[in-house]
Amino acid sequence: MPQLDFRSPRLFVDAALAAGETVALERNQSNYLGNVLRLAAGETIRVFNGRDGEWQAAIAGRKRPDSLTIVAQTRPQDRLPDLAYVFAPLKHARLDYMVQKAVEMGASSLQPVLTRFTQVSRVNSERMRANVIEAAEQCGILSIAGVAEPMPLDRYLSQRETRRLLVFCDEAADAASPLQALQGGPAAAHGIDVLIGPEGGFAEEERTLLLRQPRILRLSLGPRILRADTAGVAALALVQAALGDWAGTP
Amino acid sequence: MPQLDFRSPRLFVDAALAAGETVALERNQSNYLGNVLRLAAGETIRVFNGRDGEWQAAIAGRKRPDSLTIVAQTRPQDRLPDLAYVFAPLKHARLDYMVQKAVEMGASSLQPVLTRFTQVSRVNSERMRANVIEAAEQCGILSIAGVAEPMPLDRYLSQRETRRLLVFCDEAADAASPLQALQGGPAAAHGIDVLIGPEGGFAEEERTLLLRQPRILRLSLGPRILRADTAGVAALALVQAALGDWAGTP
Repeated sequence: MPQLDFRSPRLFVDAALAAGETVALERNQSNYLGNVLRLAAGETIRVFNGRDGEWQAAIAGRKRPDSLTIVAQTRPQDRLPDLAYVFAPLKHARLDYMVQKAVEMGASSLQPVLTRFTQVSRVNSERMRANVIEAAEQCGILSIAGVAEPMPLDRYLSQRETRRLLVFCDEAADAASPLQALQGGPAAAHGIDVLIGPEGGFAEEERTLLLRQPRILRLSLGPRILRADTAGVAALALVQAALGDWAGTP
Repeated sequence: MPQLDFRSPRLFVDAALAAGETVALERNQSNYLGNVLRLAAGETIRVFNGRDGEWQAAIAGRKRPDSLTIVAQTRPQDRLPDLAYVFAPLKHARLDYMVQKAVEMGASSLQPVLTRFTQVSRVNSERMRANVIEAAEQCGILSIAGVAEPMPLDRYLSQRETRRLLVFCDEAADAASPLQALQGGPAAAHGIDVLIGPEGGFAEEERTLLLRQPRILRLSLGPRILRADTAGVAALALVQAALGDWAGTP
């Protein structure tokens, strides 16, 4: 866990990044740099676009920051583990939070699924994307998690790649060691989908459908009730530590 | 992870609980039951006091809920694992959130510590206690986590019981498997303290002081930056799964 660097702001941009390039700033970016962070021409920030790594960039502009001059690469592009966070969406601020946390935890894609007891039927994908970018900017992440359109759980299950491992966080699973389950479970060479249901739980027919999936691993997250956003962070921590990129260099 | 039960509200009360007892409701409790949940005399809720388990209770009162009649025990009192969450406090809403999450994750006590880069110098302990109770009510928890007064990190380290395991989530730790560290580390028979620092990280002299503690285990939480509240949930998930009460019945 490297520490947050409050001194050098990071900005996501769409443009290609290479030494000497000029990147025009959008109005909200200019406002953020000039009025929120009070940075002026000549000061430097770091930028990334999800493809070309992270670069030092110098602010240019007469009255306010208008553009960036790309200076030098500070970090090469990396890749996140192939880890999809599949979840029943929550309402408003709690959804923002859940998306940000999944990005911090290193999810490479986000798939909202609508289940019988999901409290939300419409999801603002643009807002989800904005939260993905904000979390990536704040937490030094270089790869931008993909945001998929919401779909009903049964459609999601019928179209997902079945060679991927499906980690099903099931509030009805027997209390058994989640680490034993992950460490002794099916291999995850073709990617991992971590599924967190709604706070009302899964309906019985949904559970039946889920348990018919190949390469499924039911995970118990302890004896106490967890809210859905907490369960998301907890499950991603266990998966990253047991199977993902938290395992460190051996 | 049992599921949230939205139908049967849970209320924390101070009074002793036994069949046939009458418990007077405080004004805010009466308001919550009557005006927020719209419950009337004769309807039942569940109550707990952190000592006598969980009880079914019937609402009594003419115009609004005035008191509860304790009916029958629904769950015996349990005990949480001896797991202290030791943390640099955050500001306002993020502190509320951090406290609630630690309670959901099963921390049995909360100890704010003030470090060199902690952004907050005063902590509202009453508000922390209210958040502990709210999370316990919502998440079916029967034991109320203790809330200790904030103290400087060096004082905390000089007075803590050194036979307890100190899990030090250190952003400067080498990337190494946190599960190997936990599963192969010192035993935790005398309790565990999980320490999460401020988002600015620890100062060098603080790290030196920490590393002089006996029975210390440095934990890396992966290659990406985590905000402090996320690091808290992630660390507690790994500790509960490796050493705590998530390990299940063998």
